Amino acid sequence: MRPSGRQLNEPRKVSIETGVTMHAEGSCLIKVGNTHVLCTATLEDRAPSFLKGTGLGWVTAEYGMLPRATNSRTKREAAIGKQSGRTQEIQRLIGRSLRAGIDRSALGERQIVVDCDVIQADGGTRCASITGGWVALRLAVNKLMKAGLIVSDPIVDHVAAISCGIYGGQAVCDLDYAEDSEAGVDGNFILTGRGKLCEVQMSAEGATFTRDQMNQLMDLAEAGVAELVAAQKAALA
Amino acid sequence: MRPSGRQLNEPRKVSIETGVTMHAEGSCLIKVGNTHVLCTATLEDRAPSFLKGTGLGWVTAEYGMLPRATNSRTKREAAIGKQSGRTQEIQRLIGRSLRAGIDRSALGERQIVVDCDVIQADGGTRCASITGGWVALRLAVNKLMKAGLIVSDPIVDHVAAISCGIYGGQAVCDLDYAEDSEAGVDGNFILTGRGKLCEVQMSAEGATFTRDQMNQLMDLAEAGVAELVAAQKAALA
Amino acid sequence: MRPSGRQLNEPRKVSIETGVTMHAEGSCLIKVGNTHVLCTATLEDRAPSFLKGTGLGWVTAEYGMLPRATNSRTKREAAIGKQSGRTQEIQRLIGRSLRAGIDRSALGERQIVVDCDVIQADGGTRCASITGGWVALRLAVNKLMKAGLIVSDPIVDHVAAISCGIYGGQAVCDLDYAEDSEAGVDGNFILTGRGKLCEVQMSAEGATFTRDQMNQLMDLAEAGVAELVAAQKAALA
Amino acid sequence: MRPSGRQLNEPRKVSIETGVTMHAEGSCLIKVGNTHVLCTATLEDRAPSFLKGTGLGWVTAEYGMLPRATNSRTKREAAIGKQSGRTQEIQRLIGRSLRAGIDRSALGERQIVVDCDVIQADGGTRCASITGGWVALRLAVNKLMKAGLIVSDPIVDHVAAISCGIYGGQAVCDLDYAEDSEAGVDGNFILTGRGKLCEVQMSAEGATFTRDQMNQLMDLAEAGVAELVAAQKAALA
Amino acid sequence: MRPSGRQLNEPRKVSIETGVTMHAEGSCLIKVGNTHVLCTATLEDRAPSFLKGTGLGWVTAEYGMLPRATNSRTKREAAIGKQSGRTQEIQRLIGRSLRAGIDRSALGERQIVVDCDVIQADGGTRCASITGGWVALRLAVNKLMKAGLIVSDPIVDHVAAISCGIYGGQAVCDLDYAEDSEAGVDGNFILTGRGKLCEVQMSAEGATFTRDQMNQLMDLAEAGVAELVAAQKAALA
Amino acid sequence: MRPSGRQLNEPRKVSIETGVTMHAEGSCLIKVGNTHVLCTATLEDRAPSFLKGTGLGWVTAEYGMLPRATNSRTKREAAIGKQSGRTQEIQRLIGRSLRAGIDRSALGERQIVVDCDVIQADGGTRCASITGGWVALRLAVNKLMKAGLIVSDPIVDHVAAISCGIYGGQAVCDLDYAEDSEAGVDGNFILTGRGKLCEVQMSAEGATFTRDQMNQLMDLAEAGVAELVAAQKAALA
Repeated sequence: MRPSGRQLNEPRKVSIETGVTMHAEGSCLIKVGNTHVLCTATLEDRAPSFLKGTGLGWVTAEYGMLPRATNSRTKREAAIGKQSGRTQEIQRLIGRSLRAGIDRSALGERQIVVDCDVIQADGGTRCASITGGWVALRLAVNKLMKAGLIVSDPIVDHVAAISCGIYGGQAVCDLDYAEDSEAGVDGNFILTGRGKLCEVQMSAEGATFTRDQMNQLMDLAEAGVAELVAAQKAALA
Repeated sequence: MRPSGRQLNEPRKVSIETGVTMHAEGSCLIKVGNTHVLCTATLEDRAPSFLKGTGLGWVTAEYGMLPRATNSRTKREAAIGKQSGRTQEIQRLIGRSLRAGIDRSALGERQIVVDCDVIQADGGTRCASITGGWVALRLAVNKLMKAGLIVSDPIVDHVAAISCGIYGGQAVCDLDYAEDSEAGVDGNFILTGRGKLCEVQMSAEGATFTRDQMNQLMDLAEAGVAELVAAQKAALA
Repeated sequence: MRPSGRQLNEPRKVSIETGVTMHAEGSCLIKVGNTHVLCTATLEDRAPSFLKGTGLGWVTAEYGMLPRATNSRTKREAAIGKQSGRTQEIQRLIGRSLRAGIDRSALGERQIVVDCDVIQADGGTRCASITGGWVALRLAVNKLMKAGLIVSDPIVDHVAAISCGIYGGQAVCDLDYAEDSEAGVDGNFILTGRGKLCEVQMSAEGATFTRDQMNQLMDLAEAGVAELVAAQKAALA
Repeated sequence: MRPSGRQLNEPRKVSIETGVTMHAEGSCLIKVGNTHVLCTATLEDRAPSFLKGTGLGWVTAEYGMLPRATNSRTKREAAIGKQSGRTQEIQRLIGRSLRAGIDRSALGERQIVVDCDVIQADGGTRCASITGGWVALRLAVNKLMKAGLIVSDPIVDHVAAISCGIYGGQAVCDLDYAEDSEAGVDGNFILTGRGKLCEVQMSAEGATFTRDQMNQLMDLAEAGVAELVAAQKAALA
Repeated sequence: MRPSGRQLNEPRKVSIETGVTMHAEGSCLIKVGNTHVLCTATLEDRAPSFLKGTGLGWVTAEYGMLPRATNSRTKREAAIGKQSGRTQEIQRLIGRSLRAGIDRSALGERQIVVDCDVIQADGGTRCASITGGWVALRLAVNKLMKAGLIVSDPIVDHVAAISCGIYGGQAVCDLDYAEDSEAGVDGNFILTGRGKLCEVQMSAEGATFTRDQMNQLMDLAEAGVAELVAAQKAALA
Repeated sequence: MRPSGRQLNEPRKVSIETGVTMHAEGSCLIKVGNTHVLCTATLEDRAPSFLKGTGLGWVTAEYGMLPRATNSRTKREAAIGKQSGRTQEIQRLIGRSLRAGIDRSALGERQIVVDCDVIQADGGTRCASITGGWVALRLAVNKLMKAGLIVSDPIVDHVAAISCGIYGGQAVCDLDYAEDSEAGVDGNFILTGRGKLCEVQMSAEGATFTRDQMNQLMDLAEAGVAELVAAQKAALA
């Protein structure tokens, strides 16, 4: 029995509201159950210096959590003076995932920075960041195309992410915090709209898992991501 | 003529929505025109160590700005590795202002941390943080009292803040970003519900002002803060 | 009764000795009672990059305190690895105040850095830094003019500062440390030689004040700054 | 055709020399082809504070690379002043992987710190660190048991790791640097001696992969890790 | 011919003024030619934790340079966010030198922190810091003894320092900046009042020296330090 | 009696193995008794910016210690976020010493970075770093010359280093850790192949020494360094 009463294969309710800030070239507020992330995309004229002269663009991401997004207050990283290993790991994952859905040559020598800031956390914040971050990215690219700055669409496909894990001995879809903090095994699955894999990360804290369990989680993830992609489409329609 | 078309003494529309996050003991989203700040208050069992044994409590504040709260993207302070002088100055001001309305002895040896995170900026973010931060503080204190942890109300009065300045040669109330970036003189006025002064900061970048102008700004501020206090009362009603 | 035995409106004795270091383009040692600050001004050929091509110059300030300038030893900020919020707030104030008395266009695209290092502290170090810093600035500008590098004097007026507050229920002029640590309300008043206001900061730690008290403090400050300006003139004569 | 001339499913030669430093409780130098990592394990009497009173122990890891372990010199992280996101991600992975093979309750309230320092890099340094780190851990635990400080062996199984990826369109085992820098898809597979999975990370830089490819990589990894486990056993014999 | 016109074996004029700050337990302003250093000694009730229970005390030192102590402005270390290697090397030397003249058991479990801040630099700042720092230390210890907190004098002997080097091919005593910046070889010699050696550092930047030259420098140093010790005695008389 | 049973004037066994890493232009592993240091030299096309246009080259060094090179684990400086004062002092010494044996004009406007990483420590790590660092430097310069990038050999002479001290009241050569931690006086002596002095550092922790003792240590050092130079020659033969 899941704490939320959901079925084993039942993801949380998703809502994606676009255009939530007046300044960003693309933005949305994604709510995956009680996990709320504000995603903005910023267009920058120049690509990072390591791409100079290559004709290729770049998509990168930064991730943060408001101090009281969590049940007990988390110290502000700006006050501590550095981003934690966890934060860096997550923002590297978001950037890599979003780049998997981009034709960097069609984007040209410019950069898009996607900021994902967690307003409220209830598990799965990195996955929500990827799913919402893709929407913000899509909107920013639309703006570029509308302005005629690029001709062919650099976005190859949707990218969305879900976490699945073994909870109470059973494979469950879209872990919330209550499950995540108990799960011996959990994984993050980032897929495209056509079901291709961008990234898979499965990890067991102080435990192990079998290849069979891995396949069960993959099955759940494929179905779950399909629903997220549908939500992305609806939000952009 | 003000860029927004407002009268010289006309503050921006204010809305304060309470209970916006599930984890914080007190929270609100304050919108002062296009300036949006998420304020949360966290109750902590212990006061800072310098108060040990005094029987006095503490209220402190932290301030942050999401990278794309601004027109062009501001670098994330957590990534830079330190809070700017501006950020520190602002959060010290918020904390000092909120303490002006608190009886620290009635609060007892505990701490309340008020986090003010700017979601969207259009001038006056520090003032909106104080006005909204007070509401979050009020809600957290209500929780303390309801739980019977304190008997007499430590909140002595409302605290709210507004910025007024000399724009185009005339004193105007509640500067937005278009005005603020042009104003030779601007001030932040923090007052209580009964009109007492907590803090006054008037400054001229590369210019000076007269005592007469100072009094005009004070007059505008007194009227403006009264409207903010009314908005606080309405939000809490 | 004030701890020092001074009258309510009586500022401390001021002495300003110029030319105290062999390397700086302008320097002085200002003593306001027992508060001693060494101020140096450094001419730099280039303005900060944000002013490139504008024809405008810049004046900035840095502030520090020797570890044993205080009654108990203060940790060295260089050893801690960062400047405190207080330090940053103070040096931003000094820079802003000095710029209020400068015609940046007459200065041209160069920068003057004013360093204010507190040798001994007894309250009012930021005000002494402004008053002394202005003298160092004046001397460095004199050098620029003598060398024929600028033709018209960029210094528009004297700038000096004093702190006044409510001590023991009464408005007093030029708080020393014994008063400052007890005062519920204190303010810093930065004025020009002609009595114009550059900056006013009044703040109440855990208390409030009235507009009437604010006016009393302003009256004391106007008189007090006039004496400081006279001391600046004498030092430069 | 692989740059090294190896078969598609052929891992590199592995050698593990134990007891390479006089101070550490456990140590080895692992060479996986031209990738050389020095691994040491340090016994500490106390567990981290978050485990106080739980009766559980902890295994953690740190990772570093000598500046000239790489083809062009990498800046020293100690001189830069922080560990990169990559370093933190790797050392978190090593620690998590090693904990997957440990019964923390049998270990008791103590900590073992495994340091993995790359002497020479040619791809796959994080995997070599896990495989070698486990040997150092095993030796340190042996010392604990020999000293009678713990009674039942806290090590549940071997842990070893290999990277496999899609290179030139084909799944290959144990990527070296020449392959790794070209591979569109690569994964790190951490398994136990009995073939259970501890962690799987597959990622595509600017590309995607199929579930079928994922299974091919898994097959290669299972065979590759079996050889590594045999090498661990030989080294300890 | 030396730039200053001094004889080869002629040190600079030294003056030591004691009691220059109101807060420190011991203080002096030492002027060695144009090198001016403010030295303060702070008594602390507790020794560093590594001495707990040993009955031994500690003397440590910190060193800083005001930004405009030098010919062109040196960046403030507090603003940069760390002390340079040079600063750390110097303050470690000062502390070690002062401890050479102390009976730490007679001092008891307390610490004396000597701060040496260079007001104006013209070569030899570390040596002036040691010579002046010893005077501040002496005064602070006098205070301890007068208060009856310690019975037997922990100060075993004077400690003073001078730099000598090979300038223009000849051994010269007490290098000033003009010489120091040209000297191929220079050394710092720290001796006691009775002529014992505490520390000798001779170094050649891009050059070498002979044992004979080393002895010439030692001879100059012995004579030079004797004059400094006389100046210490005079200042304390 | 020395803990190791060595004669008073007997240095430890030295071995120097060259070509120990595949990437560096020059490398060696030096073992001085149980002190093992890996030294690599990296050729860089450009000299530091302060040498631009001078025609002069630069040699610099960095030093590190693996966490478990020591008896109890030393915290990783990369994790702490800064290099200790000790580390900086040592790497400055290594660089200065190596430059003493170089004709920077013959080297031309390029830089050689020598990294010295202590794999195992048993006293004298800075001296072993200099002796081994010189070999790595020699090999890298050989490569430069072989490639015809420089015509005349910039290496003027060997440079090697040894520590000698007063242990148990007697002057002994080449202190190991057991002696070093007890020695009241110890010194580092850096000499060239022809016996010229590059740097001499003698220091007494909480003690003093005589000029006579200084000469005894110098005598031991001269003999000891001659053996090290012979070992350098043998390794390069």
